[in-house]
Amino acid sequence: MVPLFRSLIQGNLDMDTPLSSRPPDTEASRAGHSLDRALRLEPTPGQPDRSTGRTSPEYWNMVGPFGGVTAATVLKAVLDHPERLGLPVALTVNFVAAIAEGAYAVEVRPVRTNRSTQHWVIEISQVDEAGVSHVVLTGTALTAVRRDTWSEAELGMPKVLPPTEVSRAASPAIEWFNRYELRPLVGNVPAQWDGSQHDSLSQLWVRDDPPRALDFPALAAMADIFFPRVWLRRAVHTPVGTVSLTVYFHADEAMLARAGTDCLLAQARGQGYFKGFHDQTAQLWSTGGDLLVTTHQAVYYKA
Amino acid sequence: MVPLFRSLIQGNLDMDTPLSSRPPDTEASRAGHSLDRALRLEPTPGQPDRSTGRTSPEYWNMVGPFGGVTAATVLKAVLDHPERLGLPVALTVNFVAAIAEGAYAVEVRPVRTNRSTQHWVIEISQVDEAGVSHVVLTGTALTAVRRDTWSEAELGMPKVLPPTEVSRAASPAIEWFNRYELRPLVGNVPAQWDGSQHDSLSQLWVRDDPPRALDFPALAAMADIFFPRVWLRRAVHTPVGTVSLTVYFHADEAMLARAGTDCLLAQARGQGYFKGFHDQTAQLWSTGGDLLVTTHQAVYYKA
Repeated sequence: MVPLFRSLIQGNLDMDTPLSSRPPDTEASRAGHSLDRALRLEPTPGQPDRSTGRTSPEYWNMVGPFGGVTAATVLKAVLDHPERLGLPVALTVNFVAAIAEGAYAVEVRPVRTNRSTQHWVIEISQVDEAGVSHVVLTGTALTAVRRDTWSEAELGMPKVLPPTEVSRAASPAIEWFNRYELRPLVGNVPAQWDGSQHDSLSQLWVRDDPPRALDFPALAAMADIFFPRVWLRRAVHTPVGTVSLTVYFHADEAMLARAGTDCLLAQARGQGYFKGFHDQTAQLWSTGGDLLVTTHQAVYYKA
Repeated sequence: MVPLFRSLIQGNLDMDTPLSSRPPDTEASRAGHSLDRALRLEPTPGQPDRSTGRTSPEYWNMVGPFGGVTAATVLKAVLDHPERLGLPVALTVNFVAAIAEGAYAVEVRPVRTNRSTQHWVIEISQVDEAGVSHVVLTGTALTAVRRDTWSEAELGMPKVLPPTEVSRAASPAIEWFNRYELRPLVGNVPAQWDGSQHDSLSQLWVRDDPPRALDFPALAAMADIFFPRVWLRRAVHTPVGTVSLTVYFHADEAMLARAGTDCLLAQARGQGYFKGFHDQTAQLWSTGGDLLVTTHQAVYYKA
């Protein structure tokens, strides 16, 4: 969620939009889903590690794209790589500078391939007006062949109201919020910015809008769906930006297929806030109770 | 803790070693602390991003060095870099292959320096018998100038017995364990490998042995102090290895100085175990109750 500023704070977060059965998005069915448009990458001929993307106005944040979609883009680049082995296990991306509107170059390099695991080094760069290329994102990923073996979610899904019984959050004046159906359960953006202290726990239902069958890039994007914990903790206007995001995947394609186009339960909380940076630890479950993702981030805040 | 195998499982984990006042380690005072010996890096003349280290027999694990010391080594390389800005905020290291006994090359490159933050790309490589260089670790780090501002540990330290009232764990037949004073509170290595199910929560007191004033590399090492959660969860002999470790630092030098040479309270638990990889989420507090580190890892397991 890098970076989100006052417009979200000042946006309309009324929760009176009713749940409705949604007609098929015919534009989406003609042109592909908005997420697929945002993740589109043009391969660089003869250079399997390199491709080119463009920021999507549909996922625009305040001064750059929604960080979750950027994470999803580099993960998709890994998954599309001709040498890719296995499924995503771990992804870390560092938002080292705001990504400017327009084109960017993605490099995903398989730096080590073992028998059943593969390690990736990731970089996004952009060329400035003077023609100089600058790194705007660094990262690493691990993909691995998943083997049928003992598996278990030790952390059970919290018992919460089903999505059908939870009002949808209206969108603030941030474009990417319109790409998600968000149904807050507890710990929504504070209604009053009054400096009151809150537990930073948030729980919400989330899915793409329009609904889209779950895949790994969509999961990576939703790992970054939360507004910053420092807002909830303090109820104070605070400029923020995610600086590092780590996603651990606990799912294979069969589990994603079970999740389908249903909402996911998303839960986040902060643990430590120290001199300008705080953490966030979060989980995503399918409606059926599968723990799909555990995820963590470091967030800059200017208190 | 990459990788730990049967010797630890079969080791002597009696908890009957009494707490004693420790005489000064005169060898350590002559030759430096064992941790400082392990972290020693030889700069590469004219190449500020590069240095050379050697695996330390004092921190040897089963088939490679203790992963925590490797994480500490690359963090130290960042901190020693002549262009380094600020203090550590986030560190991610990926253990992409077992590190062989002997020399290795460390590269820590400041890929982007902003006004108050700096992003690093990290790599360790080793030359094999055929003279070919192989990447054995990848990583990224963020350092930043810490500003005095609102700070808080939302996650309070658990109420536990003080270190003086907790027996020390005897060391198993793993060399690096002898470099730490470990006082388990709950969730120690299972006494019986009987397939019983346990909550994966562990809490223990830990410090360097001999005691050493806390710094950021020591903290990075202790972030990896835990035995793998899958052992505790299942009480089944399981080969394991950490594949990715992320550390978020919530401390500055003043807070480290307050922690001094006292024990830290270390807490870890697993959340998801899926087809060969599980996560771990953990925290380290000073004896005085400061939350110093939140940390996460992805662990390979062969069930």
